[in-house]
Amino acid sequence: MTLPNLRLKRHEDRRLRQGHLWVFSNEVDTRATPLKRFEPGEAAVVEDAGGKALGIAYVNPNALICARLLSRDPRASVDRDFWLRRLQQALAWRERLFPRPHYRLVHGEGDWLPGLVIDRFGDVCVAQLNTAGIERHRHDILAALDRLLRPKTLVLRNDSPSRTLEGLATEVEVIGAPVEHVTVEENGCRFLADPVHGQKTGWFFDHRDNRARAARLAKDGRVLDLFVYTGAWGIQLAAAGAKEVVCVDSSAAALALARENARLNGVADRVAFVQADVFEHLKLLKQEKTRFDLVVADPPAFIKRRKDVARGMEGYRRLNKLALARLGEGGILVSCSCSHHLEAARLQQLVSGAAGIARTCALFARGGQAADHPAHPAIPETEYLKAQFYRVIPWP
Amino acid sequence: MTLPNLRLKRHEDRRLRQGHLWVFSNEVDTRATPLKRFEPGEAAVVEDAGGKALGIAYVNPNALICARLLSRDPRASVDRDFWLRRLQQALAWRERLFPRPHYRLVHGEGDWLPGLVIDRFGDVCVAQLNTAGIERHRHDILAALDRLLRPKTLVLRNDSPSRTLEGLATEVEVIGAPVEHVTVEENGCRFLADPVHGQKTGWFFDHRDNRARAARLAKDGRVLDLFVYTGAWGIQLAAAGAKEVVCVDSSAAALALARENARLNGVADRVAFVQADVFEHLKLLKQEKTRFDLVVADPPAFIKRRKDVARGMEGYRRLNKLALARLGEGGILVSCSCSHHLEAARLQQLVSGAAGIARTCALFARGGQAADHPAHPAIPETEYLKAQFYRVIPWP
Repeated sequence: MTLPNLRLKRHEDRRLRQGHLWVFSNEVDTRATPLKRFEPGEAAVVEDAGGKALGIAYVNPNALICARLLSRDPRASVDRDFWLRRLQQALAWRERLFPRPHYRLVHGEGDWLPGLVIDRFGDVCVAQLNTAGIERHRHDILAALDRLLRPKTLVLRNDSPSRTLEGLATEVEVIGAPVEHVTVEENGCRFLADPVHGQKTGWFFDHRDNRARAARLAKDGRVLDLFVYTGAWGIQLAAAGAKEVVCVDSSAAALALARENARLNGVADRVAFVQADVFEHLKLLKQEKTRFDLVVADPPAFIKRRKDVARGMEGYRRLNKLALARLGEGGILVSCSCSHHLEAARLQQLVSGAAGIARTCALFARGGQAADHPAHPAIPETEYLKAQFYRVIPWP
Repeated sequence: MTLPNLRLKRHEDRRLRQGHLWVFSNEVDTRATPLKRFEPGEAAVVEDAGGKALGIAYVNPNALICARLLSRDPRASVDRDFWLRRLQQALAWRERLFPRPHYRLVHGEGDWLPGLVIDRFGDVCVAQLNTAGIERHRHDILAALDRLLRPKTLVLRNDSPSRTLEGLATEVEVIGAPVEHVTVEENGCRFLADPVHGQKTGWFFDHRDNRARAARLAKDGRVLDLFVYTGAWGIQLAAAGAKEVVCVDSSAAALALARENARLNGVADRVAFVQADVFEHLKLLKQEKTRFDLVVADPPAFIKRRKDVARGMEGYRRLNKLALARLGEGGILVSCSCSHHLEAARLQQLVSGAAGIARTCALFARGGQAADHPAHPAIPETEYLKAQFYRVIPWP
């Protein structure tokens, strides 16, 4: 079967040759190969302005990222075997990393599976088919996954905003055995997560290493966990010996599960849950002059798109200022951001500025997304997670 | 005692107000306060153009960084108690982090002790007094250190190039009991290091966490350790179960100690040492088509000053290209740089480029300097170490 060509304008092959996988719609020579000739998700051979083939991509004429490379080999067959091999590779890496089957199995472009995300919770898999190209291959991908893992349940969390950008419907589908909660094991603790109604896939595996690092610093301390969601940070810190943990979140549903998770790990007596707006609660704690030894600030992305940078930065600045103010001398702030558009260096500036010069802080560790969230080194967009560890110090 | 003033030009207080500790010589209002009035290392009250005091600094009229803030409090006394308090703070942090007394005790600006570095190997301390200001307070600093730790031996490694920039003599001095080797414990292994003749202080504590991460990936693999120095990476990887480790370095003295360290850890039968230029040896390995499962490339700084960037980048590019070529599918590259002037994102680009598009690699972890090397978040220069972990993957 011969694939249609997608011709790039002059010089627009450069990024692909440097390793990137994306083609933007303004880079296509639409006189030679009109985008509207393509159906959403259709495969094509991408070629440079001189007609040299660069690989096979799937195309979406309705999206800003109008093509994503699947293979550098223009003769590759994108069939069930293709997806199976990619999934096998992704699985082999996770099996090498983790003794238990709880991890992100597929991390999109970082696994050369652009647009596809799969989290694995034992025999339950939760997938996000985020592009028209992935949606079009849905049958083969799910068959490959089934052959590889035979999950009892597959939850399709096709309700991400990226689907809307691709012109796809948003919906949640459960295939196989009904599921209410899944169990996650992380750093020696056990958690229930809700793969159907929870945020994204129900659990954030990406902070695994950062939580382990924070846990090593929590012993005997008073901990404040902001945006606790279902309790991952706070409960792990309590299990590591924190003497008191206060967890704040605005969602009653998340806190109900978090409470259950605290019981599951035998730390319910040391963990308090507060349902409140985090900023409001921080103001209250300020009035009460309550101090902590360690504060975790792991907010949702304040910057989702580049145009949100200024407003989002202000949110991070306020959050970190209020959080730092709750720490005494020697206190530790774990300042997180999952906004790709907030660079690590800018978060650092912002925390430094929020600390002011009346007190100061030292940055002693920086963590990123865990190893089951591989980044594609030529695609900065695949790297997004920051966890910066600061210690408040008493000089000047 | 009244300190002299050091007046800044208009707007040149901005960086200090954002948290930085350095004043550059072109920022001083030398008509109001000529730099040559100051003796090297003399203390002064730094003030803005309007005469508002910003804190106490030590001054060096002969250095590009002509003043470094010691305190934001213009009335602080820089006496023995001052140094003792700062050292106590630094010590308290390390004692919290590490069960054994082997660590960087003082990391300059990151510990609000600009110009001072102290590594601790049990009852041996190794210090670098890197500025005229620190040199001038030498007596008080050493007395405070003595009071705090009573080291049997203090080695002054005052042979760093930064002393030359400060107009100071370079020399090595041993105070107290003579010492040949010190013992370092790191990640469960034991090493001998040479604090008098070795590189810098004789040991690089900064890679502690990165070595631990690499060790977790080494089991049953064939490892190539480039620029092995006294064996820290290779021996820890052998101890973690690597079945064969090849260590390359050009220094006979370093390799002699590395061999001893391999014996000390019971892995001498699995570790081979090659005395050779690393680039030449990589070419030889290429001819022989020898492959490894994990390659550590931890070179000395190829970029020491900003003007070296282009040449240094080329060195990193060549090194990573040759190193990547020694890896088979699924192989792991640990690519390090201790050059502050090589940003993490640029190293990433460079490795990605070196991998090419015929193969590709995923970046699955990024490490920095360990927690006993705190960075000052407003001083980018205090952050320098990168360890990026890549996996070579078989697609396209």
